[in-house]
Amino acid sequence: MYSKEELSAIIEEYIHALPFPEEPDTLYEPIVYSLSKGGKRLRPLLAMMACNIFSDDVACALPCAAAVEVFHNFTLLHDDIMDNAAVRRGKPAVHRKWGVNSAILSGDAMMIYSYRLLEQADPAILPRIFRIFNDTSLKVCEGQQYDMDFEALERVPMEDYLHMISLKTAVLLAGAAVIGAVCGGASQEDCDRIYTFATELGMAFQIRDDILDSYGTQDSLGKKIGGDITEGKKTFLTTAAMEIADEDTRRKLGGLMHNREMIADEKVARVLAIYDSLGVREQAETAVERYTARATEALAALSVSGGRREPMERLALELTKRLS
Amino acid sequence: MYSKEELSAIIEEYIHALPFPEEPDTLYEPIVYSLSKGGKRLRPLLAMMACNIFSDDVACALPCAAAVEVFHNFTLLHDDIMDNAAVRRGKPAVHRKWGVNSAILSGDAMMIYSYRLLEQADPAILPRIFRIFNDTSLKVCEGQQYDMDFEALERVPMEDYLHMISLKTAVLLAGAAVIGAVCGGASQEDCDRIYTFATELGMAFQIRDDILDSYGTQDSLGKKIGGDITEGKKTFLTTAAMEIADEDTRRKLGGLMHNREMIADEKVARVLAIYDSLGVREQAETAVERYTARATEALAALSVSGGRREPMERLALELTKRLS
Repeated sequence: MYSKEELSAIIEEYIHALPFPEEPDTLYEPIVYSLSKGGKRLRPLLAMMACNIFSDDVACALPCAAAVEVFHNFTLLHDDIMDNAAVRRGKPAVHRKWGVNSAILSGDAMMIYSYRLLEQADPAILPRIFRIFNDTSLKVCEGQQYDMDFEALERVPMEDYLHMISLKTAVLLAGAAVIGAVCGGASQEDCDRIYTFATELGMAFQIRDDILDSYGTQDSLGKKIGGDITEGKKTFLTTAAMEIADEDTRRKLGGLMHNREMIADEKVARVLAIYDSLGVREQAETAVERYTARATEALAALSVSGGRREPMERLALELTKRLS
Repeated sequence: MYSKEELSAIIEEYIHALPFPEEPDTLYEPIVYSLSKGGKRLRPLLAMMACNIFSDDVACALPCAAAVEVFHNFTLLHDDIMDNAAVRRGKPAVHRKWGVNSAILSGDAMMIYSYRLLEQADPAILPRIFRIFNDTSLKVCEGQQYDMDFEALERVPMEDYLHMISLKTAVLLAGAAVIGAVCGGASQEDCDRIYTFATELGMAFQIRDDILDSYGTQDSLGKKIGGDITEGKKTFLTTAAMEIADEDTRRKLGGLMHNREMIADEKVARVLAIYDSLGVREQAETAVERYTARATEALAALSVSGGRREPMERLALELTKRLS
């Protein structure tokens, strides 16, 4: 079996070597730029590792793994326009560097390019992979739409928040993993287990993200703590806080989240004080543990030997316990 | 064989009945709205008619024909954002009705939905259709990028203008037709002929569009004449005029095209006077005839009886001689 580092290197090399047309450069430069900014490459890694559980030949999963990564980066590109985000992975967002129109169109081309990569799937499994990919992609759009819709709401029920992150984050991790499993020749039952595994992992991953944004350290994250609070974004922490706070605290928190005048550090400190008083960090940690447990349970049910599951188990623990 | 009217009715009914999820309505309502605004349905019609040349069973081509139409309407949706167009087919553009962010995201979902429809293609031909669809879609994006790039240029060589419209318009007509032909079981040779036919037809179609925008009548077009001139858009007419005009006329025309202060009617009248003095309308008519001749020639080379080619021949003549 391949180590995580070996698979990461294979993915990085493949993505780096993707053949984009040279013209029109105004269309393809932003795409190459987006893909060269790195990131965790978590989704293709999940695809490759899932494939490797069932097969020693992982090369067949590579174009599909890259397709998911290109699709993911396309969503970031368009999301950054919608959120008017200035920076992505420490560099100017595409719409800031090339303008909104170029960002829209390059994003569109990027999505089509992700489908281009799927063409390389074995024709025998293409219809199945194509269906999973479409299903996944559409759900990611639904998740982004709910996320935007929620911005206008004072508070969101926890159930709706969890549904939103399952669509926006977990589903794509699950899609990536199950596409990898299909490439590796997994049975339908094992594909279902991989899907459950990666969905639950995705939930834990996103809630860990929410925790780190408020409780991480700038050193390990590489960005300022409290970005979500500063921007008034809905996270697991705000959602939980709004659910358990009394009327008075709820009003105070709502006012803080919408306050665009207060100095960022003070706003973050005050919101964190409310979180601490309500114990929402602990609630979030408990949720991460619960989702992680469900993920590892699904993984344990796979019809393969323990040794083949082991790298994926380790990745899951790394991701849910991570500091950055 | 089916008549054009019968095929149009089948397409309209199918598109009308497309099952979109209900939630989130903010995502799917703009899509349903876009698709309900009608239009010529030219691309699915080409797909269905191309299929019908080779097969009496046209139902198999229907989802693919609809996929091309959904994709086309997605491009219009995103193009309207980029062009800041207020109206599409007599109704407010999606970004004006729901805002830019919704328009970006609904467009994205619409593109994915077009791929969803392709899932229904016979697995035996799916890889081939998928490749044609991706190739076509990416070229349409390239065409739109060139179109945007050209806006910043004073003049564009005719060769570049023709390349741009081949990508932006002709390639999608060709993609639609050849996908239909593949569904109908056409040989590779006949697919190539259909591709040539629809590409040449697409060129003639687009140049006819350019002519009508300047020389049509408001009654038959249903919109004000001279929209391209008012907006300073590059068309076959401006491109030809810039190529053959002397230095003085070129400067005058360039100045007029960029003039945003002049009353629209006066601007249109002055530009038309220049066109007339240069004979660019005649040049455009000659180009339409040349492309149409090449299209019908490719059609005549198909390995089918004359009777099976006949409805497509009639459509081609209708499109290139049309008044609206």
